[in-house]
Amino acid sequence: MKFTIDKNIILENLNHVIKAISTKNVIPVLNGIKFDLTNEGLSLTASDSDLTINSFIPQKEIKNVESEGTIVIQSKFILDIIRKLPSDVINFEVIDRLKIRIFTDNAQYHLNCLDANDYPNLRMDEHKDPILLKGELLKSLINQTVFAISTQELRPLLTGVNVTIAGNLLVFIATDSYRLAKKTIELPHSIDTDINIVIPGKNLLELEKIITDDEMVEMHIFNNKVLFKYKNIKFQTNLLSGQYPNTSNLIPNEFGMEVKLNKDDFSSSVDRAALLIQGKDKNIIRMSIAKQEMTITSFASESGKLEEKLQIDTDEGATIDISFSAKYMLEALKTIKDENMVLLLTNDIKPIIVKSVEDESLIQLILPIKTF
Amino acid sequence: MKFTIDKNIILENLNHVIKAISTKNVIPVLNGIKFDLTNEGLSLTASDSDLTINSFIPQKEIKNVESEGTIVIQSKFILDIIRKLPSDVINFEVIDRLKIRIFTDNAQYHLNCLDANDYPNLRMDEHKDPILLKGELLKSLINQTVFAISTQELRPLLTGVNVTIAGNLLVFIATDSYRLAKKTIELPHSIDTDINIVIPGKNLLELEKIITDDEMVEMHIFNNKVLFKYKNIKFQTNLLSGQYPNTSNLIPNEFGMEVKLNKDDFSSSVDRAALLIQGKDKNIIRMSIAKQEMTITSFASESGKLEEKLQIDTDEGATIDISFSAKYMLEALKTIKDENMVLLLTNDIKPIIVKSVEDESLIQLILPIKTF
Repeated sequence: MKFTIDKNIILENLNHVIKAISTKNVIPVLNGIKFDLTNEGLSLTASDSDLTINSFIPQKEIKNVESEGTIVIQSKFILDIIRKLPSDVINFEVIDRLKIRIFTDNAQYHLNCLDANDYPNLRMDEHKDPILLKGELLKSLINQTVFAISTQELRPLLTGVNVTIAGNLLVFIATDSYRLAKKTIELPHSIDTDINIVIPGKNLLELEKIITDDEMVEMHIFNNKVLFKYKNIKFQTNLLSGQYPNTSNLIPNEFGMEVKLNKDDFSSSVDRAALLIQGKDKNIIRMSIAKQEMTITSFASESGKLEEKLQIDTDEGATIDISFSAKYMLEALKTIKDENMVLLLTNDIKPIIVKSVEDESLIQLILPIKTF
Repeated sequence: MKFTIDKNIILENLNHVIKAISTKNVIPVLNGIKFDLTNEGLSLTASDSDLTINSFIPQKEIKNVESEGTIVIQSKFILDIIRKLPSDVINFEVIDRLKIRIFTDNAQYHLNCLDANDYPNLRMDEHKDPILLKGELLKSLINQTVFAISTQELRPLLTGVNVTIAGNLLVFIATDSYRLAKKTIELPHSIDTDINIVIPGKNLLELEKIITDDEMVEMHIFNNKVLFKYKNIKFQTNLLSGQYPNTSNLIPNEFGMEVKLNKDDFSSSVDRAALLIQGKDKNIIRMSIAKQEMTITSFASESGKLEEKLQIDTDEGATIDISFSAKYMLEALKTIKDENMVLLLTNDIKPIIVKSVEDESLIQLILPIKTF
């Protein structure tokens, strides 16, 4: 294998696939990135066996191919090595079968490589008829839900995002059992067979970073895996197995109180209240509503307290005194892009619903915390 | 105490003094910042008893003073609290003697305070006739030397910078005994009594951050402390006691070899060589000179090796094969601002001197590492 390529092209594509490399990986060859150069182009693959990313550089984007071949290059340092080489064009040449020479006119790295024969055969199957989503839409489906997954491995299913399709409705749901994020969109076409899968949240976060524009993303769903195809990139992740809890009855249908307010004002109030209690396990702040005014308070015995008033729009008789996690509220508020928002409340133990006034597709639910 | 002040003014001044607050502090009241409001203005003081910083805001820069007084406000969160308040003007009011209310129209923090009576009396003496240095010059004296101090508490004196004045020559020297940085400047006037003090390096780093322009800095030197006065800021640090080692005979007077080369080229070569060995205890790279060409190599058994050639200007017969720490060389090279540099070499065990071609005031010395 010997070829010459623009530094920016190889860097961009390595940058995509390297996201699949895990530091916890125990299979030595999976610490490397597989370079596979044929007369069609250069295929780069990285995997932690759970997540596999492939990026394909077509032959016309490669400056010069002297000989084809396959090798696995250690991922450690590889981005820095290429980035720091003093030329816009980089040469790669396999020497002694298991070494690669990466060089420019005056500088050359000789790197130990791994044997491509040891690299697992990672099938990346595709359907004839995948689900199509615009890049920006998929990004917001991920961004507006994935933060709510559980980080605790005790309930592994909750570390994933529940993706369901019924008819033409596509729904992303994430919950850690204290809060829930739900985003619903309409697909242009209905599908025949309902879908109900759980995609690991951390892998969706990596996918979100790779998607940078509004080009179509193909979604190929299988029993135990899903493949996203975007431009020249294939992104395949295993699914979490098991039955995701039914969350449909968690969101109340009726509420005693509807509170309209400015999203930025509320968000910065909660942020200030969170300040005094940062670093605490339970970052609880209190919200009181009476006489069409909202009061936000927080208290830390060693530091002091915050109290502030917010103008709101609600029924004259509405009163409530409710406590919740400032962190959860801030994360929910971050997903709301509009200026005006709604809080739907019932009493101090029923869920709080956070929504945009304009956008009905997104629901954020936060359970209150009982304080005495 | 009750006053109103522009957010930016109080933030800027708090930001200066808070640099003296130590997280390792054991005296409770020194976790706070002392606010002292008189008819002349607001004096802010913070200290870890080793370093004391005072910033004075004259009365004309304070929007409104309703009553004078003194209190110690906990430094934790104080910058964030003020930064996040939703107004450009902030009100401070002492309530209940040991609480302060920091408020704007709709938001108010009540913070627990510390008793100003417990705050130590920190004298900040001044000479009639201080040494005067331009701000930018003092910044470069610090920047070009302080990185070479020792971080090990075993030899406490080496964690400081040795500052000497003899006649009109001011010298900053730092060494960790493996490398040495020395910067010499001429003062406009000679002083009568020679000075030889050691200033804690970490405090000089904080001073460097506070100085932002070329205004004059006054240097008031005492037996056991030094006070820097810059604009409205007083910065006082204790000195390290003891006799700093005599370093004058460490720098050789004669060299077998003078090598001229481009600073950026050499620096990026060393940087690339350092890449493969990063994270290693001894980040040793090798430099060979023969036939008026320099070769830089580095080697890591698990990753591979780097080799590159550099064009240099030296005697035809000059040959050497020498190893040194890539980290030390990169840090020394960062202090050199000119395009062209000189390496002065003798053999593989004698010190390497790194200098700019133009600037004779700065000398960087690095001891080679013997490899077999």
